[in-house]
Amino acid sequence: MKRLDTGSAEFEAGFVALLADRETESGRVDKPVAAILEDVRTRGDAAVCELTSKFDRLPLTPDRLRISAEEIDAETAKVPQDQIDALNVAASRIEAFHRAQLPKDMEFTDADGVTLGQRWNALDAVGLYVPGGKAAYPSSVLMNAIPAHVAGVERLAMCVPTPDGVLNPLVLAAAKRSGVTEIYRIGGAQAVGAMAYGTETIRPVDRIVGPGNAYVAEAKRQVFGRVGIDSIAGPSEVVVVADNQNNPRLVALDLMAQAEHDELAQSILITNDTAFGEAVAAAVETELKTLTRSAIASASWRDFGAIITVANWDEAAKLVDRIAPEHLELMLDDPKSVFAKVRHAGAAFLGRFCPEAVGDYVGGPNHVLPTSRTARFASGLSVYDFLKRTTYIAADREALEKIGPAGVTLANAEGLEAHALSISARLGNS
Amino acid sequence: MKRLDTGSAEFEAGFVALLADRETESGRVDKPVAAILEDVRTRGDAAVCELTSKFDRLPLTPDRLRISAEEIDAETAKVPQDQIDALNVAASRIEAFHRAQLPKDMEFTDADGVTLGQRWNALDAVGLYVPGGKAAYPSSVLMNAIPAHVAGVERLAMCVPTPDGVLNPLVLAAAKRSGVTEIYRIGGAQAVGAMAYGTETIRPVDRIVGPGNAYVAEAKRQVFGRVGIDSIAGPSEVVVVADNQNNPRLVALDLMAQAEHDELAQSILITNDTAFGEAVAAAVETELKTLTRSAIASASWRDFGAIITVANWDEAAKLVDRIAPEHLELMLDDPKSVFAKVRHAGAAFLGRFCPEAVGDYVGGPNHVLPTSRTARFASGLSVYDFLKRTTYIAADREALEKIGPAGVTLANAEGLEAHALSISARLGNS
Repeated sequence: MKRLDTGSAEFEAGFVALLADRETESGRVDKPVAAILEDVRTRGDAAVCELTSKFDRLPLTPDRLRISAEEIDAETAKVPQDQIDALNVAASRIEAFHRAQLPKDMEFTDADGVTLGQRWNALDAVGLYVPGGKAAYPSSVLMNAIPAHVAGVERLAMCVPTPDGVLNPLVLAAAKRSGVTEIYRIGGAQAVGAMAYGTETIRPVDRIVGPGNAYVAEAKRQVFGRVGIDSIAGPSEVVVVADNQNNPRLVALDLMAQAEHDELAQSILITNDTAFGEAVAAAVETELKTLTRSAIASASWRDFGAIITVANWDEAAKLVDRIAPEHLELMLDDPKSVFAKVRHAGAAFLGRFCPEAVGDYVGGPNHVLPTSRTARFASGLSVYDFLKRTTYIAADREALEKIGPAGVTLANAEGLEAHALSISARLGNS
Repeated sequence: MKRLDTGSAEFEAGFVALLADRETESGRVDKPVAAILEDVRTRGDAAVCELTSKFDRLPLTPDRLRISAEEIDAETAKVPQDQIDALNVAASRIEAFHRAQLPKDMEFTDADGVTLGQRWNALDAVGLYVPGGKAAYPSSVLMNAIPAHVAGVERLAMCVPTPDGVLNPLVLAAAKRSGVTEIYRIGGAQAVGAMAYGTETIRPVDRIVGPGNAYVAEAKRQVFGRVGIDSIAGPSEVVVVADNQNNPRLVALDLMAQAEHDELAQSILITNDTAFGEAVAAAVETELKTLTRSAIASASWRDFGAIITVANWDEAAKLVDRIAPEHLELMLDDPKSVFAKVRHAGAAFLGRFCPEAVGDYVGGPNHVLPTSRTARFASGLSVYDFLKRTTYIAADREALEKIGPAGVTLANAEGLEAHALSISARLGNS
């Protein structure tokens, strides 16, 4: 863990190093992934079944690719009722937020008599990738599937690998609750290929979303263009801005909630009180003694954690913008006034009773967020990812007479004669 | 040009071939591009100057990378007044449409007492790539720069190669009119690298947009993640849906306006009258005799053009959705009723007096649109490309008491103990 103070001469160098630290080269898996995609594209189901047998130790035939409704019901029946209840609370709140997010169509007629508009339509079909094994988070299923469902996507296909054939009941329950229409027991680049190109059994989709390992990320990169993809997530981070009126243990737990995700996760505390920062550092050490994921959280905190002392909250807001964190907590008396000064953050959590974990599960806004400084230009997953716009123009002769001549001039200046003629001939000028 | 009829037994095979025809493999330029990017990243201005000397035959020093305000003024003074006037008409209309497109922030407090919201912020800095030579379209400068300016982007850097040092006055005039804040006389992968990584002279940007050749497209692909990029444009297409009440020559000109762009462009007429289709085919042949870009338009029409006869407009709307065209013209008595049935199109042009060329220049909506069937999942360029959302949650103790327990249950189910503790400790339960 690094200690930095904006009042120190070494601050700038230390802060720049903090931002650069986690820039890692992704592994080179482009060639094996290209081979898998080509295999799936040309041989379809047969390739998918062979690859699943090889990578997931699961012999499959095409008729068993899809997890049946009976299997789903049998598995979800195993989920304890309190988890089902919690899933419903989360799903309902995520639904409500994303419904509020739905954009409206727009149309107006301007002074020249031209009618202009834009109309939103849902994608026809979306593919949702869900990692298998330990990285299978039911909350991620909710966060990826519900916005698509709310947007109006009719076909929502999910792929989840089931190594050795083991199904994850809570993941299946989350899929069922979120409007997923079909689930396939496949993973890796072969699942991405199946969703992008289609096979005899799996119809192709228009966009693929959801987290995955390096192979899945590279496969999404390679099929991009044929289908849409979501952004490739990097390691996760949180910035907690806290004054000394907070309980150090609560701040420490929030920092550790980020750190326990991944050794590459980054947790940063910004405070205006060095002594408070030290109290938090001590509380972190205490918590690390007992946390079940202590090994991961310790490594993350040791390598990428930081406590930064600032002179005031304006300075804090400026640092936040330079970090452009995925998650921002403002544990202050007046969090809104500081939040108003921040431009770059994926999601913000305001007040002393709003830990980031609320946003992971039950807040309502999406937890799929821009990581690794990409909040400078990117946003969290939303209904917008599952909608697209068609703009339109309607003009009659009178309107074309008004705006057409300028178009003719520009078309001719660009040397595009047919463009110019298509307007001027309508006006009887050629 | 292909003739297809939905009433024929061969229709389906012919239509599928029509969609597949233009699927081309992009050239393999990933290695030379990677080398150029690495060179620019490590050596900055020196690399950019050397590469510009090599590729554009233009010896440069770092102090000459940027085109000065005096040069811009001197060049734009050469533009004829009618072109300046036309540029102003186009720019004002593009501004008005994109201003209407600006989304509003959202906030609400729900029944549990949780305040939820999302806030839009502009990107800090955007890089605009403009091709040099013949492909330099002033209208593209307007269409890329104005949405960024309207969104509130403060820094709008443009790179335009000037082979042999030749500047394009109308391109510079368009940049000046659109709020571009700085212009560099560089192009290719080296320009993309300079904007993504920054050099001693050129500060890095957050997102790079604008069309370019295969090297530029590959460079954007490689810097994606460090910065945002726009979609990679493929060959362009139009579908014209027209009844026999239209002047065949006007329909022919609209088809040729698309075809004159590029040998890979695709122009498709859908009509309910085979004889009218033949009249349009004849009119195309007549126009091709005199068009200045006849060679390009002829090749495009010969290889990818099509006239499809349908039984009714419902059938037409279904075919449009399968094509998911970049541009859709509806030259019908009641274009709105057919448009209402279409889900997948980049931009639509309604009525007999609204050729697609209007949208290229003076309509107002953006002319940077999803090509090659990507309108299934993608949208045209817009203010959204230059904004990003921060979602937020505010909760007090009472609100956390209501929604927190479900979060604790799910966090524990996912094995994330610190997540659970960060909520339960605030509620005094751990």
